[in-house]
Amino acid sequence: MENHFKLINTMKTTKPELYTCLSPALLDLYPVEKSIVVIIDVLRATSTIAAALHNGAKAIIPVDSVAECIRIGKQIDSITAGERDGQIAEGLSYGNSPFEYPREFIEGKTLVLTTTNGTRLLHMALAENAKAVITGSFPNLSAVCAYLLAQNQHVILGCAAWKNRVNIEDSLFAGAVIDRIGSHFSINCDSSQMAVTMYNDAKADLFEFMKVKNASHYQRLSGFGLEKDIRFCLTEDLANTTVVYEEGKLLAK
Amino acid sequence: MENHFKLINTMKTTKPELYTCLSPALLDLYPVEKSIVVIIDVLRATSTIAAALHNGAKAIIPVDSVAECIRIGKQIDSITAGERDGQIAEGLSYGNSPFEYPREFIEGKTLVLTTTNGTRLLHMALAENAKAVITGSFPNLSAVCAYLLAQNQHVILGCAAWKNRVNIEDSLFAGAVIDRIGSHFSINCDSSQMAVTMYNDAKADLFEFMKVKNASHYQRLSGFGLEKDIRFCLTEDLANTTVVYEEGKLLAK
Repeated sequence: MENHFKLINTMKTTKPELYTCLSPALLDLYPVEKSIVVIIDVLRATSTIAAALHNGAKAIIPVDSVAECIRIGKQIDSITAGERDGQIAEGLSYGNSPFEYPREFIEGKTLVLTTTNGTRLLHMALAENAKAVITGSFPNLSAVCAYLLAQNQHVILGCAAWKNRVNIEDSLFAGAVIDRIGSHFSINCDSSQMAVTMYNDAKADLFEFMKVKNASHYQRLSGFGLEKDIRFCLTEDLANTTVVYEEGKLLAK
Repeated sequence: MENHFKLINTMKTTKPELYTCLSPALLDLYPVEKSIVVIIDVLRATSTIAAALHNGAKAIIPVDSVAECIRIGKQIDSITAGERDGQIAEGLSYGNSPFEYPREFIEGKTLVLTTTNGTRLLHMALAENAKAVITGSFPNLSAVCAYLLAQNQHVILGCAAWKNRVNIEDSLFAGAVIDRIGSHFSINCDSSQMAVTMYNDAKADLFEFMKVKNASHYQRLSGFGLEKDIRFCLTEDLANTTVVYEEGKLLAK
């Protein structure tokens, strides 16, 4: 009996740790070097990335400026994409909507995508020597959870936020991951508790929650007439592909 | 009728803004210079400050180190207080518990109190020229709300957090303020929505919520046998005094 308790105790203490980082400005508080970092930019970068890779894109190159996007677009056979204020950015060919990347268009192609908040966080995680970097969004929630369980490593759920300001939707996705697989991790992190508490309030209807809570991104995107995009980005497993960063590229695994 | 709508519209747009800053590391994202900043350090700094001033302390001088506390204690007639790891810090006379400062002891006296997270945030707010700085805690929740309504200025609810890590209890207090008086402000701030959502989940029993959510501070303080302190710090209006910072001192107003 005593051995049985010892075994349980050992199992408890060897669970990997999980943290939620609510803003890139807080990333240096967490043990990046020993963790897998999940980049979360729900509206819309990581949702669109999941959609394009799920639909057969060869690779996605995330870049943090329109100029860099144009530069790479000239060097390699690729599609350049990115928006500023709800319009395709000058010099680029496509926008940030997941619906612009159906299989018949994107299959086998490389997409060079400008995103500001998500790409910045991704580069920060790489600079701090994260063990691995993947991207997460509701459309690939199950794939993210399965990957994290299989790796059995420490995890940082990294919210891309908006110019460092905490946002509801990225926090909700962190909460969704914790709701699904949190019990497999050791969680001593108030941000994680806050995220999963909010997710449990919201999960019956994430879209309605965002609307009622007057989420800043909901306002911004619905002002651009992008409710259909928002609904896609808040729906689980519509593009259920694992997305892993490797040598400058995001790839389906 | 048209004039009536115009009036309503004008009233709407002239509401002051309210923001919740979940960590001192995020303070520079908010308009500090044009706002009243509420310093929130629920366990236990701002709760103990409210208790001591409510019980008649003449003033509280918040300092950010034990050395500074000792230095000031030698210069002026005062009581020095502060803890490290749950024990009264070496060289100081009293601790951080609100129960150490009943009226019969503290009335008319000046308390020099070391707190790390709260004092740091207070100094940051002063350095960024906040319009005014007050402290907030559940024991003086009603006083804080009445003050903010009377001032009719922009507000930043500043969570002291723990070494910049977001914590549950300071966020809950921000949520409590928003739950009470949020409708008098213009709130375009996801952190505020997250705080008030969590508060509404928690408010029936804040102590139980902290326990169930395994809040990091709850663990730490209850490990020191301080459940009674935690209960005091989570109870509304037990020390319902407005606490305003003026020229180096926290004063009851």
